[in-house]
Amino acid sequence: MTAVESVGEFRFECGESVSDLTLAYETYGEFDGDNAVLVCHALTGSQHVSNAPRSEEHDADAVGGGADGGDDAGGEGDDEEGGSDADAGDGPTGTPGVQTAGQARAWWDDVVGPGKAIDTTEYYVVCVNVPGSCYGSSGPPSEGPDGEPWGTDFPPVTVGDWTRAQRRLLDRIGVGRLHAVVGGSVGGMNAVDWAKRYPDDVRRVAAVATAPRLDTQCLSLDAIARRAITTDPNWNGGDYYGADRPNPDDGLAQARRIGHVMYLSKASMARKFGRRAAGRGAFGDAPPDPTGRFFPYREVESYLDYNADSFTGRFDANSYLYLTRAMDEYDLAAGYGSDAEALAAFEGELLALSFTGDWHFTVEESRLLAEAAREAEVPTAHHVVESDHGHDAFLVEPESVGPPLRDFLADGVDGRAVRDEGEEDPAEERAGGPERAPVHASLFPG
Amino acid sequence: MTAVESVGEFRFECGESVSDLTLAYETYGEFDGDNAVLVCHALTGSQHVSNAPRSEEHDADAVGGGADGGDDAGGEGDDEEGGSDADAGDGPTGTPGVQTAGQARAWWDDVVGPGKAIDTTEYYVVCVNVPGSCYGSSGPPSEGPDGEPWGTDFPPVTVGDWTRAQRRLLDRIGVGRLHAVVGGSVGGMNAVDWAKRYPDDVRRVAAVATAPRLDTQCLSLDAIARRAITTDPNWNGGDYYGADRPNPDDGLAQARRIGHVMYLSKASMARKFGRRAAGRGAFGDAPPDPTGRFFPYREVESYLDYNADSFTGRFDANSYLYLTRAMDEYDLAAGYGSDAEALAAFEGELLALSFTGDWHFTVEESRLLAEAAREAEVPTAHHVVESDHGHDAFLVEPESVGPPLRDFLADGVDGRAVRDEGEEDPAEERAGGPERAPVHASLFPG
Repeated sequence: MTAVESVGEFRFECGESVSDLTLAYETYGEFDGDNAVLVCHALTGSQHVSNAPRSEEHDADAVGGGADGGDDAGGEGDDEEGGSDADAGDGPTGTPGVQTAGQARAWWDDVVGPGKAIDTTEYYVVCVNVPGSCYGSSGPPSEGPDGEPWGTDFPPVTVGDWTRAQRRLLDRIGVGRLHAVVGGSVGGMNAVDWAKRYPDDVRRVAAVATAPRLDTQCLSLDAIARRAITTDPNWNGGDYYGADRPNPDDGLAQARRIGHVMYLSKASMARKFGRRAAGRGAFGDAPPDPTGRFFPYREVESYLDYNADSFTGRFDANSYLYLTRAMDEYDLAAGYGSDAEALAAFEGELLALSFTGDWHFTVEESRLLAEAAREAEVPTAHHVVESDHGHDAFLVEPESVGPPLRDFLADGVDGRAVRDEGEEDPAEERAGGPERAPVHASLFPG
Repeated sequence: MTAVESVGEFRFECGESVSDLTLAYETYGEFDGDNAVLVCHALTGSQHVSNAPRSEEHDADAVGGGADGGDDAGGEGDDEEGGSDADAGDGPTGTPGVQTAGQARAWWDDVVGPGKAIDTTEYYVVCVNVPGSCYGSSGPPSEGPDGEPWGTDFPPVTVGDWTRAQRRLLDRIGVGRLHAVVGGSVGGMNAVDWAKRYPDDVRRVAAVATAPRLDTQCLSLDAIARRAITTDPNWNGGDYYGADRPNPDDGLAQARRIGHVMYLSKASMARKFGRRAAGRGAFGDAPPDPTGRFFPYREVESYLDYNADSFTGRFDANSYLYLTRAMDEYDLAAGYGSDAEALAAFEGELLALSFTGDWHFTVEESRLLAEAAREAEVPTAHHVVESDHGHDAFLVEPESVGPPLRDFLADGVDGRAVRDEGEEDPAEERAGGPERAPVHASLFPG
């Protein structure tokens, strides 16, 4: 179950403050003083990272929780799990309903749990819903000082605010230094931000499917997604809360459709849907469009509509505006002269994990991150996974993601399954591939 | 000036008919009986392909015209030309205003004209606004049988309808066999459709930045763009015509923003805009968004807003729905067992021209087209241009597009500047590149 902790007055990077920041979080496993792993969720994710048994010490604080909502990348996962989006979570207002632990969907259950890559019998795993989101932490839909939802009066948030809030929460629950921070997508930016902001507080950072900053193309698509929300008349300047008022579902659905295209690849979309026609009327709440009367409603459109519809049932439109702005604004180099300088004080090790089919956060961007870390003399591996799953890969390919994560947590960049770019897969080497020294070792002689 | 020709009753592929199909078109150069080149415009383009002097024989039919609107790909062109979108065309209702020939913007003026690649002193160039569009040909905004705009009562159109309508118009103006059909983007589909539908009527087909069919990712983005229009309350089921009624500009603007992202590449967007902040309020008609108060309005967003705003002033929302549906539906293999069978009767030659940075119509898709043509024993060249301009390249790189087009029109696939994939650039060969026989020659021995 989700626990909720008040961490007191909090001043955001924008200069605005709230008198009492609330953070919703989950913990798994037992803390032994040196085994804490912070997992950072992606854009529309939640603290509910795993269906593993929660840590016992927080049961007292527990609220009805187990919020759904981890699938930032959504796509493949939704589909293969039969659209489980639809049966978890109970509304867009950030007040998750009571659900039995283990039934609500956990967004990285294939990776985090007993015996899994991030093994909750070994590590004490903490996952915190970021400020600005809508799964129990303070954000636009949560109650403001006047007893009404904050709406757009909630202070703008940044990835740095997330990191600082997580630090505050960890202090409250008695976790000092972290063994590791692991995050994917914008959660990977959050993870890297730990190395920048609290360089002495974390031993190992695993940055999955992420980048030092978002590229121009993705900035554009995020801006278009936000515009879809803000031009929905029901958005009403961000003031739409209340049972009797319509949510800006059309706009939020459009934003989600755009997101899904970003999370998939050309190859995965072609493989899953092709140009096939779906049954008409599967999502008949679309406005009637006589211009479509001669043309098929395609499976891919049905998929986008289905997932968009599920999403509007579980996410808050203002939170979507807040969190995409935080992602867009993040720049590792900010406040420093370069990415490398931003990482210069980091004493730990870095794993950058990227996927060849990911066009949201590309291999090239992950390489920039790895190169900056190397320039900062951080022991670094850039592990590139061949995949055509797109950005979704980090969620739907636990078989690719798990082994390097597991071994990185255990042994750092020298971990057995951790490959660096250009380094042969050990399996291929055994099969007679060219012999070569591991790049990550040769890069840090002595 | 644009001429307008009535081609009589026309039955569309959907089975519906109009009693009198009107086609707006322009012609350049003098017809000598064997030198006609049909140029097919892209999605939001018009018949106004060039600022070259129009052919004299059509002056009698001329209407106040010279419709603007060729920049399907828009992007780079808009910017480099100082946003000339804004000063051409006068409204979204398909009634182009009177403009002096030579002042309105022509969408391929760098390629079509006297002494240019498609040389109007040599060829008789014809460009026809496709049915369903809004530059003078029959379409949703044109007058229907009851004297009111057709709106969504206009029959759904297909690329095949465009081809058939062009054939009808050419018959009316006395052009039988075409020397060539040239088109880019969906205009390239239109060009290829000529080889399929009228295989004896065209000697050379140049299909630029196109594909046998749209991929799933682009189908998705088109569907999202259409949904932006149909969820705009001002769309009103397609019934929004009349001076006193608002157009669905928010929706059409969103569709155009999505389009621009498709027309550019990651590299071109990064180069042109990066993450730079623009002056605030440059396009202040955006709804006020308090969630943006701490964040910059970026140059790329300003660019998208500027172009979206220009676009809503020149294009019709229903036409956008009609034409994207036509593009989405096009499938070269339709009615045949394969792409190759669809081209089996074609007696001419094919040039497929593609651009490495184009993710809307990829090199791989262009290769599929070329391979199908080869399988059909059509003399074929697939000329790949190294470019990071994205889909826009076919509009903004006349120096890359012009020479192969010119030489293909003159000498077919054996044209001097026509390279086939794998074939060395002659300039590189002279510089000492590996010697090899031209692939397109070796593929058709004897």
